[in-house]
Amino acid sequence: MSYNSFGHILRVSTFGESHGPAIGCLIDGCPPGLEITAEEIRDEVLRRATGKSRHTSQRREKEDVQILSGVFEDRTTGTPVALLIENTDARSKDYENIKRQFRPGHADYTYWKKYGFRDYRGGGRSSARETAVRVAAGAIARKWLRQTLAVDIQGWLAQLGPIRTDTVKNWECVDDNPFFCPDPGVVPELESYMDALRKSGDSVGARVNVVARNVPAGLGAPIYGKLDAELASAMMSINAAKGVEVGAGFDCVAQKGTEHRDEMTPDGFLSNHAGGILGGISSGQDIIVSTAFKPTSSLRIPCRGLDIDGNEVEIVTKGRHDPCVGIRATPIVEAMMALVLMDHVLLHRAQTGNEK
Amino acid sequence: MSYNSFGHILRVSTFGESHGPAIGCLIDGCPPGLEITAEEIRDEVLRRATGKSRHTSQRREKEDVQILSGVFEDRTTGTPVALLIENTDARSKDYENIKRQFRPGHADYTYWKKYGFRDYRGGGRSSARETAVRVAAGAIARKWLRQTLAVDIQGWLAQLGPIRTDTVKNWECVDDNPFFCPDPGVVPELESYMDALRKSGDSVGARVNVVARNVPAGLGAPIYGKLDAELASAMMSINAAKGVEVGAGFDCVAQKGTEHRDEMTPDGFLSNHAGGILGGISSGQDIIVSTAFKPTSSLRIPCRGLDIDGNEVEIVTKGRHDPCVGIRATPIVEAMMALVLMDHVLLHRAQTGNEK
Amino acid sequence: MSYNSFGHILRVSTFGESHGPAIGCLIDGCPPGLEITAEEIRDEVLRRATGKSRHTSQRREKEDVQILSGVFEDRTTGTPVALLIENTDARSKDYENIKRQFRPGHADYTYWKKYGFRDYRGGGRSSARETAVRVAAGAIARKWLRQTLAVDIQGWLAQLGPIRTDTVKNWECVDDNPFFCPDPGVVPELESYMDALRKSGDSVGARVNVVARNVPAGLGAPIYGKLDAELASAMMSINAAKGVEVGAGFDCVAQKGTEHRDEMTPDGFLSNHAGGILGGISSGQDIIVSTAFKPTSSLRIPCRGLDIDGNEVEIVTKGRHDPCVGIRATPIVEAMMALVLMDHVLLHRAQTGNEK
Amino acid sequence: MSYNSFGHILRVSTFGESHGPAIGCLIDGCPPGLEITAEEIRDEVLRRATGKSRHTSQRREKEDVQILSGVFEDRTTGTPVALLIENTDARSKDYENIKRQFRPGHADYTYWKKYGFRDYRGGGRSSARETAVRVAAGAIARKWLRQTLAVDIQGWLAQLGPIRTDTVKNWECVDDNPFFCPDPGVVPELESYMDALRKSGDSVGARVNVVARNVPAGLGAPIYGKLDAELASAMMSINAAKGVEVGAGFDCVAQKGTEHRDEMTPDGFLSNHAGGILGGISSGQDIIVSTAFKPTSSLRIPCRGLDIDGNEVEIVTKGRHDPCVGIRATPIVEAMMALVLMDHVLLHRAQTGNEK
Repeated sequence: MSYNSFGHILRVSTFGESHGPAIGCLIDGCPPGLEITAEEIRDEVLRRATGKSRHTSQRREKEDVQILSGVFEDRTTGTPVALLIENTDARSKDYENIKRQFRPGHADYTYWKKYGFRDYRGGGRSSARETAVRVAAGAIARKWLRQTLAVDIQGWLAQLGPIRTDTVKNWECVDDNPFFCPDPGVVPELESYMDALRKSGDSVGARVNVVARNVPAGLGAPIYGKLDAELASAMMSINAAKGVEVGAGFDCVAQKGTEHRDEMTPDGFLSNHAGGILGGISSGQDIIVSTAFKPTSSLRIPCRGLDIDGNEVEIVTKGRHDPCVGIRATPIVEAMMALVLMDHVLLHRAQTGNEK
Repeated sequence: MSYNSFGHILRVSTFGESHGPAIGCLIDGCPPGLEITAEEIRDEVLRRATGKSRHTSQRREKEDVQILSGVFEDRTTGTPVALLIENTDARSKDYENIKRQFRPGHADYTYWKKYGFRDYRGGGRSSARETAVRVAAGAIARKWLRQTLAVDIQGWLAQLGPIRTDTVKNWECVDDNPFFCPDPGVVPELESYMDALRKSGDSVGARVNVVARNVPAGLGAPIYGKLDAELASAMMSINAAKGVEVGAGFDCVAQKGTEHRDEMTPDGFLSNHAGGILGGISSGQDIIVSTAFKPTSSLRIPCRGLDIDGNEVEIVTKGRHDPCVGIRATPIVEAMMALVLMDHVLLHRAQTGNEK
Repeated sequence: MSYNSFGHILRVSTFGESHGPAIGCLIDGCPPGLEITAEEIRDEVLRRATGKSRHTSQRREKEDVQILSGVFEDRTTGTPVALLIENTDARSKDYENIKRQFRPGHADYTYWKKYGFRDYRGGGRSSARETAVRVAAGAIARKWLRQTLAVDIQGWLAQLGPIRTDTVKNWECVDDNPFFCPDPGVVPELESYMDALRKSGDSVGARVNVVARNVPAGLGAPIYGKLDAELASAMMSINAAKGVEVGAGFDCVAQKGTEHRDEMTPDGFLSNHAGGILGGISSGQDIIVSTAFKPTSSLRIPCRGLDIDGNEVEIVTKGRHDPCVGIRATPIVEAMMALVLMDHVLLHRAQTGNEK
Repeated sequence: MSYNSFGHILRVSTFGESHGPAIGCLIDGCPPGLEITAEEIRDEVLRRATGKSRHTSQRREKEDVQILSGVFEDRTTGTPVALLIENTDARSKDYENIKRQFRPGHADYTYWKKYGFRDYRGGGRSSARETAVRVAAGAIARKWLRQTLAVDIQGWLAQLGPIRTDTVKNWECVDDNPFFCPDPGVVPELESYMDALRKSGDSVGARVNVVARNVPAGLGAPIYGKLDAELASAMMSINAAKGVEVGAGFDCVAQKGTEHRDEMTPDGFLSNHAGGILGGISSGQDIIVSTAFKPTSSLRIPCRGLDIDGNEVEIVTKGRHDPCVGIRATPIVEAMMALVLMDHVLLHRAQTGNEK
């Protein structure tokens, strides 16, 4: 059952805590013969790394990815690929004061209620540090999808607090700024907003979109492996996610049927309110998913909280934190999209014998 | 892997097509000793039935639930519970004209692309008819949760097209009108809106909320069995769902951390932006989930579409359809909430030996 | 997790009790387009039916297989195939006297210890009646394997009590006698042995072999989905099974490496001690599995046992029972072989894109 | 689906090749609070280590177990436990000559047929090196079972080639000789047999038994998670296993029902032909499983084989090999027994709320 795993045929299991010796993952079910190196994976992991701008946490990890198995002479063998990244810049002493306290908005309380015992250092297993290995696994899926089916996946920041950036002005711009913002004109506004926010000690939410292009029609497994259900689960499993939309998403609530239904002609669909998925199966249109990320709860601004004895305490969070976790979420949603899609390509060829 | 199944320890598998002889489900993993009768289950299934008001499809199914196994002398035995509901009011001739056509916004095209072959009658497996057995399975989960942990689950219509009904005025009212609207004052407005809509031949979207109360803290399985991820998948697997939110949902994008984080005192949480889930684990607060349902695509208003030879055709959909599928979605989201929660109670006691 | 299911991509779930209204199964993951009729499936089910000779139980079931879903115009659609067989000849009154007793050698005691509650009629869920739906599901797998890969599966009685019949003299003979004995010359001996046994009121064990031919090399999923491990589990899940061997089986304990290893030449392997599986993966040789079935424990000869209050009682079992359950096991082991192989063909094409 | 994983609630995934940088495993679902150290685990792993006597391979691994996650302050946290063992004594040059050859009786040919590409060094993923991490994972399960339920698990060599050692004369003796032989009187005979065998360049098979005591009645999940089916799969997944028996095993074929059925009295069962499992559920009696291991196929005695171009070649295997893999199998079957039992204890409390 493995609750630290996801996927069906391509199955990813992750392990590791924020301040443990290492984090890592197993990728089971990867087809043999894919050329892959540790360097390629590390480059992808570095896209989500902290410490690259003043707008994120200042923890600086080398993200040195080691391939422990499943790759021989730079090619996958079909056996499980194990990846390991050592933690090299954890500062556990920052967390001494919350050892016996529950930070509001955090998993501290719920882990303690569930397990009666927790690794409090840096949030332990509930830390966003774990997402680094999702990106590592995703690097393999992206490469396989690109090579096998020319599938292309790209994410972008769609909104940060009050600033909307959902319209993509320039795809090239996305990777050229620390926000994954697709509009170079808005970057200065984001910079000043974040500078003021950081100064205030507060944090803010964000929305991140992702599109997958050239996805063949036919992916998805009705009824309880629907492609949109799988994507919803994948995105919602990312730290701080609170909502997921496919295509028109919540806008469909106020839409009429005549507006929403995407008409078809021999030249293709006339619109894409469905976000590329009908009845849980890909239609061949772009798959579009949007995810909401809540503001970080770790703030130096004090608030009311409890300690493990049930006493009220004032909580002040030290340590190094992202004032907006959504800023670094773009590579993560891309990775989750890639892993879900690759899994469904494999399943599709299992059931039908075809890749597309 | 079973793509027509969901859940881990409590595992539900469904089968059946809209116009086949019957629909049904298997519920595996239900603890022994629960008292349950076919009548109780049928009463729950009838809550989502069509044909009860002029605002839904006029297909009238008896929803006569048969228990084929797993229950002996009105108590569950621990072996799989199989439920069967015969289809008694299907009219397959209504679908003759779409035998070779793809209705835009429907799964016709994607099933055909996936399988190369489809049961076109009433949408076959992709029909919302399947959701009747989710409600049947959910009836068992609701009863077990209520008896074991006093968990109480209630859904309501939160928005229908432009009309917002998200504030609950009167819980008793919810089951007293065909919309599951929690505000008796708005019901007349909904009635006239739907009458006009039906007359126009168009359809509209809706939003449905659900709350679970008395859920013990500690449910959820980090990291890829997070309670919110499981709920997102469960809700998104319902026909026509396009978006899922937990707690503040997409509103968190514009929230500051000081606003979003729910402060704790010895008397409890001071707010519930988290929607009862922190780090993927229940906190003991109410669990609140909101789901967006798109407008029905089956309209008598013509539109452009394709036939299976790739020719453009004018599509006009006959048959009996809901002008707003969201209207009947309330019992379905309640059922999915119940099934996910019960599964996680069982898992929690597996891993910790405790129910709460 | 579904403990009443097996298989990965082709997943079979069964339900039903010996004396409940019906037994049935769901077959999820069957590729679309396979031509299949209820009659074909019933014919296969009838091969294991009781009441056809004096050597088996005299319960006479019509085995009228109904296809409830997943087949449209006599072809599979890719959605789950649900099969139902009504129970028509159960005699529950025969079991009144064991309502409060545990028959030694039966699951009565263990089900009661596990669940605290049991359907005692005919053994309830633990009855061999359940294997009828395995054969039904297996009929689909056999046909698909035969059509897709020309895989041919055949079982036979290899030993009954002291009488060894492991050498196949005549494949045609196997289906022409009630024992599935491959040697027409031994049939009279089996007849008289069974007649004497039945008269004595005792029962006896048996060994059943099965071979699969034309299985492509490459099936099996190291390391925990090894083809031999999957077959071992599948065979051991059959009622009364106590041992499973692949190829040389327990004979390999006394073999030298020079004797056991199957040498290869350009014309093929020189022997088949491996039973067609090396390292958990099929080698292209015949796959050979042998299963031991214990003697029926339901005897009219009294023995010492307990009732549910812990008191010692004399147990005498009435009802209609097979004096040798192994006699009817041949179609069941064939079905389990077929289901495991088809599942692994689907998995193999998932991971490699190839069928062979 | 994860084919490199086994177990349901307690789920173990392994990775690593014989000559890769490391082997390791993830143990997901372990309850929180178990005290465990890397040293305890290493001590268990060393029991199966090579290089301790002249009767096994001379590869000498330090088996330095590292705990990478899931344990905090020497206690499990409930999150996945990751274990790593670096490979420190691999000699890949020994395998240069079989780079393009298939050793008969090995997985060389079948991996190549499956994946079209293989890590030939030391057998790669198909090497028995992988079993070290099974023993590591098993160390955790054994400790948990002992502490929680006083379950005690012990294996022994039951037969080596022609020498039978199935009767346990002295439990203490088992761990005091390199064969895990339970009869000190037979050890000299085993020594001389093995010395002669090694000199001859040949290898031999073995049978290993394992017993679990104090297992509560009620474990096992009918019908496709039967305890015996799970044990059969677990044992058959071990390298070189060719047969599995529970209780009387294949001896039941010639038994009468009056002999086989284990009568019950208020003082307990009068025999244990069932091997502690009835209807797939534990009865509270000792669980007894026997596994056959084939002779090693890697011999310096030449034989006929093929190369990857299909040409016939003479195969002579160099490298360091066990002349009888069964000798070191005892700790492995113990580990597999422990892991299966612990998994089923967790499942049992999921479905019933009880541990016993």
